[in-house]
Amino acid sequence: MFTGIQATFIGGDARQLEVIKKFIELDASVTLIGFDNLESNFTGAVKKELSLDVLRDTDTLILPIVGTDEKGNVESIFCSNSITLTADHFEAMNPNVSIYTGIAKPFLKEQCAANQLRLTEILDRDDVAIYNSIPTVEGALMMAIQNTDITIHGSTSIVLGLGRVGMSMARALHALGARVKVGARNPKDLARIFEMGLTPFELGGLADQVVDADIVYNTIPKMMLTEQVIARMPHDTLIIDLASKPGGTDFRYAEKRGIKALLAPGLPGIVAPKTAGQIIANTLCRLVTKHLANREGTS
Amino acid sequence: MFTGIQATFIGGDARQLEVIKKFIELDASVTLIGFDNLESNFTGAVKKELSLDVLRDTDTLILPIVGTDEKGNVESIFCSNSITLTADHFEAMNPNVSIYTGIAKPFLKEQCAANQLRLTEILDRDDVAIYNSIPTVEGALMMAIQNTDITIHGSTSIVLGLGRVGMSMARALHALGARVKVGARNPKDLARIFEMGLTPFELGGLADQVVDADIVYNTIPKMMLTEQVIARMPHDTLIIDLASKPGGTDFRYAEKRGIKALLAPGLPGIVAPKTAGQIIANTLCRLVTKHLANREGTS
Amino acid sequence: MFTGIQATFIGGDARQLEVIKKFIELDASVTLIGFDNLESNFTGAVKKELSLDVLRDTDTLILPIVGTDEKGNVESIFCSNSITLTADHFEAMNPNVSIYTGIAKPFLKEQCAANQLRLTEILDRDDVAIYNSIPTVEGALMMAIQNTDITIHGSTSIVLGLGRVGMSMARALHALGARVKVGARNPKDLARIFEMGLTPFELGGLADQVVDADIVYNTIPKMMLTEQVIARMPHDTLIIDLASKPGGTDFRYAEKRGIKALLAPGLPGIVAPKTAGQIIANTLCRLVTKHLANREGTS
Amino acid sequence: MFTGIQATFIGGDARQLEVIKKFIELDASVTLIGFDNLESNFTGAVKKELSLDVLRDTDTLILPIVGTDEKGNVESIFCSNSITLTADHFEAMNPNVSIYTGIAKPFLKEQCAANQLRLTEILDRDDVAIYNSIPTVEGALMMAIQNTDITIHGSTSIVLGLGRVGMSMARALHALGARVKVGARNPKDLARIFEMGLTPFELGGLADQVVDADIVYNTIPKMMLTEQVIARMPHDTLIIDLASKPGGTDFRYAEKRGIKALLAPGLPGIVAPKTAGQIIANTLCRLVTKHLANREGTS
Ligand SMILES: NC(=O)c1ccc[n+]([C@@H]2O[C@H](COP(=O)([O-])OP(=O)(O)OC[C@H]3O[C@@H](n4cnc5c(N)ncnc54)[C@H](OP(=O)(O)O)[C@@H]3O)[C@@H](O)[C@H]2O)c1
Ligand SMILES: NC(=O)c1ccc[n+]([C@@H]2O[C@H](COP(=O)([O-])OP(=O)(O)OC[C@H]3O[C@@H](n4cnc5c(N)ncnc54)[C@H](OP(=O)(O)O)[C@@H]3O)[C@@H](O)[C@H]2O)c1
Ligand SMILES: NC(=O)c1ccc[n+]([C@@H]2O[C@H](COP(=O)([O-])OP(=O)(O)OC[C@H]3O[C@@H](n4cnc5c(N)ncnc54)[C@H](OP(=O)(O)O)[C@@H]3O)[C@@H](O)[C@H]2O)c1
Ligand SMILES: NC(=O)c1ccc[n+]([C@@H]2O[C@H](COP(=O)([O-])OP(=O)(O)OC[C@H]3O[C@@H](n4cnc5c(N)ncnc54)[C@H](OP(=O)(O)O)[C@@H]3O)[C@@H](O)[C@H]2O)c1
Repeated sequence: MFTGIQATFIGGDARQLEVIKKFIELDASVTLIGFDNLESNFTGAVKKELSLDVLRDTDTLILPIVGTDEKGNVESIFCSNSITLTADHFEAMNPNVSIYTGIAKPFLKEQCAANQLRLTEILDRDDVAIYNSIPTVEGALMMAIQNTDITIHGSTSIVLGLGRVGMSMARALHALGARVKVGARNPKDLARIFEMGLTPFELGGLADQVVDADIVYNTIPKMMLTEQVIARMPHDTLIIDLASKPGGTDFRYAEKRGIKALLAPGLPGIVAPKTAGQIIANTLCRLVTKHLANREGTS
Repeated sequence: MFTGIQATFIGGDARQLEVIKKFIELDASVTLIGFDNLESNFTGAVKKELSLDVLRDTDTLILPIVGTDEKGNVESIFCSNSITLTADHFEAMNPNVSIYTGIAKPFLKEQCAANQLRLTEILDRDDVAIYNSIPTVEGALMMAIQNTDITIHGSTSIVLGLGRVGMSMARALHALGARVKVGARNPKDLARIFEMGLTPFELGGLADQVVDADIVYNTIPKMMLTEQVIARMPHDTLIIDLASKPGGTDFRYAEKRGIKALLAPGLPGIVAPKTAGQIIANTLCRLVTKHLANREGTS
Repeated sequence: MFTGIQATFIGGDARQLEVIKKFIELDASVTLIGFDNLESNFTGAVKKELSLDVLRDTDTLILPIVGTDEKGNVESIFCSNSITLTADHFEAMNPNVSIYTGIAKPFLKEQCAANQLRLTEILDRDDVAIYNSIPTVEGALMMAIQNTDITIHGSTSIVLGLGRVGMSMARALHALGARVKVGARNPKDLARIFEMGLTPFELGGLADQVVDADIVYNTIPKMMLTEQVIARMPHDTLIIDLASKPGGTDFRYAEKRGIKALLAPGLPGIVAPKTAGQIIANTLCRLVTKHLANREGTS
Repeated sequence: MFTGIQATFIGGDARQLEVIKKFIELDASVTLIGFDNLESNFTGAVKKELSLDVLRDTDTLILPIVGTDEKGNVESIFCSNSITLTADHFEAMNPNVSIYTGIAKPFLKEQCAANQLRLTEILDRDDVAIYNSIPTVEGALMMAIQNTDITIHGSTSIVLGLGRVGMSMARALHALGARVKVGARNPKDLARIFEMGLTPFELGGLADQVVDADIVYNTIPKMMLTEQVIARMPHDTLIIDLASKPGGTDFRYAEKRGIKALLAPGLPGIVAPKTAGQIIANTLCRLVTKHLANREGTS
């Protein structure tokens, strides 16, 4: 239980609602800043304006997944006014506060460092990346179904990378009956691909592999689908690039050749905001619980 | 090879192009009626107007999946004028012609019967229904991903019926990590559901099963999701009704209760027209080949 | 609940213990004949000798899976004396008795017919055959692992037949990473094999398919693996013939060619007697429950 | 191609034959020491006695998987005399020789270090461990089928560890229809277990998890199944301990409580020596190829 915890949420999107719900369930004292238009009635949560006083009393501060921008602005889809965190705000904070966000931009990192505040980024955790791979994969499947005139079943599908997203992507495609080839650079991944019943290939040979590809799913955040590779694809191959911007595809060349190539960032929040919110909520609760236990252990 | 076969296609949609392609590959003499606007260049196929002469010379007549309507009209997406088959046309046909369509309406059946012409409906074949279940299932997955804020993985998903579509649907959901319960009425299906690693239940107990359902996929062409059943669902359950019109859902009541319920007919032609066309093409070719073999056998 | 039911068990093997346990749980009055050496203490069950009186009082008579032999002898692994059912015994039976067995030989059928007694064979039920396919498949996997020097994963495995056993066999092999080809004769099975992500072939082409087979699993109770077919196999192919005796393999020729061919009957009772017993117990309980309901309905 | 390579094999078991076969195929010059009784006729390989001369001419030396013992003895199942490598032998070796073995004991490591010889152990490679997990898992499945009276399908199966063996084990059990719970200690593994559709638990809670376990598969080379844990198991739970000797089970206590617990080392060589040999052969060939390429690159 989080009884006694003073948790403050500043802004965010639909995913944040799952986190708020969970904190209330666990009996934290919850303050909401930037949720003015929120209709759903979270009994027990108090809506407030941003102020130094609120921050002074906060021991657990939860920022949106995307944190603040370079100037300290916090986005909220539940509020028309903008919210801005300034140096003053960070200075005012309780020195024992724990600040949580998805990914922190330099501004946020610098402010926390300057004030010796504990900042935790949760999106770069391995476990969160694996949980998030599930909605990511479903988003990619949806795009594949929408953007081809064939079925995934029976298609020749290529996955680039057997990382956290790549393994989930490959498993799902295999499960739906695709002929799945997975490209990786290291021998352990090639072995695991084989064990999973899929066809492994070394990334060096990518250009030869794409000649019969119906769909290529890229998860490697490096330029992989270069002009040389795209030139070898059939004209009706579909590229779904899941790697974070700018992706790993020469989109300009793909367009020139008439190959459909889609960059698809942020799928979890788009196709399954509730599940994505629960992933964050569960992770935050585990982290806060552990933090509480550690604090007790040392006191 | 279909060398020597006089095949005439009258109208249809994108799926028919796969059939035409295949017949040309197999060296049939192909005549196209109602394909005036067709851009892709089928070398070897001849475009003609509908006439008694053409029909007299045809030994294999391929109508669209949906056949003719009640008045003999044949739809074609490749032609602006309408095409109408009349009694005269059927009378003029070669008595040894084989006519193929997906599903025949009474008009077509009557004309064939009156003129003792061989008519084959291919959509009611078990094998075609199973092949078509594959794009149907992918369409349903796409709808589930689009219309919920959660992932299929981890969802409680109910499938009604373990027929040709139901088995494919259940397998795909299980493969994607859903908790799948399948309702059936006969003991052999309940046993197969168990063997597949899913949770079987008897349809009589449906109302009790839906109380924790995230998504319900109906494949039974009977009223299954009645007011009594829908009343027991959580308010955010999604119903995807795959059964042919009018489906098996009390849509009026679902709307009243605020439960999202989608009737989703014709998915193969929508989500995977090329695959759907190939299914028809392959089946027609098998049937024509067999017919040729039989004819030779008896001559 | 089976309160009030007079259930008598005559003989059987380990599987019967699960049935007895279930009947006692459901509060039937249980009499055991031919279980003299049974050590486990079934509280509530009464051991008796075979007598006309016992049979007169019995309304539910449960014989072993294999029934009686041609002379009325009933085998029991829990008893050193043999037990023999004679015409007198059948004549003495309660005319409303329900007799259950796995498969009945002509003697048993004749006696029941002559006395107008209700006899139910449960092993020829579709649902029981599907449940039993599960231990059958695991037995076959065990044999494959034991009798080859390669892994199932990555092997080229052929399954003959997509019936109740064949479908389960094919699914398990695919799941373990084998390259699975399944032979069937009818188009609906070929379509289902494809949908399952396996490679279908028509049985007519069997001889061409076996040329690279590592393991062939036969489930078709007809001579399939003839001299002509076996002659085409690599010399280290393993044949596991699951079809009921005499199987579908030319064992004499296989031996001559030095191909290992194993006939493997009765696997459920061998590899998983408890599961096999539970399958029977569950089925019998469903049948008895239904019989009771019907009787009440008509009275 | 290995043309020009002087490869010498000293001893080994059935697995080594696959390696020899592969080297001959690739056109290496192959010398066999300790293969006197080998019947199969490897055309092109030359059998020799161990001598300083042979070693001097060898550029690729392949020892058995288990290397030498502490005194330099090399086991061979193809030879009645024992073969012993002494310090003299190592001194005589070509300074550019590459020595390959599975796992090296201190004696071998010391000799190679003393003479600055290049020694490669292949069994501790991630890729080899993953390939080997496949036959290991099949061996474990065989043992589970043999040593229980229930089916794997429907059983409650626990896997400890999601390492190279654990992931393969868990996947196979799930594929066969078991209810699979996997215990791990790190959050990334718990996330992957969930993504795979299995039930994750933290190893700290192991004692509570085993209360309904039918079969427990241990892959963690630490004492996991302690007295406290075993005490909570049902009396008919089966333990299959795959971890390297001495395993992770309190075997003494298991026996005392009447719980069947099996330590199962070396499964790949036992259940699938040919596949296990091919894994080694493929790995060695990749390594030798890479070594050749590097050497050329630098010269
Ligand atoms: N579209 C979305 O909605 C969405 C959702 C989640 C994640 N993502 C993005 O998807 C990408 C993958 O995420 P992830 O969690 O799977 O990351 P990850 O676990 O780090 O996987 C990255 C993969 O790329 C490979 N790789 C990296 N650099 C490479 C190079 N130079 N050459 C060859 N292979 C290389 C890695 O192989 P090695 O192990 O050999 O390095 C690994 O297999 C990231 O860009 C992430 O931001 C997008
Ligand atoms: N939406 C689309 O794009 C699309 C695509 C393909 C098919 N469909 C439609 O989907 C439906 C199913 O097709 P299918 O090929 O799977 O048909 P199917 O193989 O005949 O399966 C129908 C299932 O419904 C069950 N059923 C029928 N009447 C029942 C009743 N009164 N009570 C309980 N169960 C009953 C059957 O069980 P028993 O075996 O016990 O009779 C069977 O499991 C059809 O309406 C078809 O037109 C739609
Ligand atoms: N070894 C064991 O422990 C064990 C356990 C259970 C069962 N069995 C035996 O295994 C066999 C299969 O059992 P099952 O329950 O799977 O039976 P099933 O459902 O009737 O399946 C039999 C299969 O054989 C095919 N078939 C039958 N005659 C054929 C023919 N002349 N040509 C081509 N295909 C033919 C059927 O195809 P169609 O649908 O086209 O007819 C069907 O696919 C039986 O002999 C059974 O007694 C053995
Ligand atoms: N029986 C056979 O035939 C056979 C065949 C192959 C391998 N093996 C043996 O099987 C074992 C596993 O091999 P592997 O290749 O899977 O090794 P691995 O990849 O290193 O996996 C070991 C697993 O044990 C976990 N682990 C290690 N120490 C732990 C601890 N103190 N507490 C909790 N978890 C711990 C690891 O988790 P972390 O990642 O958190 O450390 C990892 O999940 C080895 O002993 C190996 O020799 C046996």
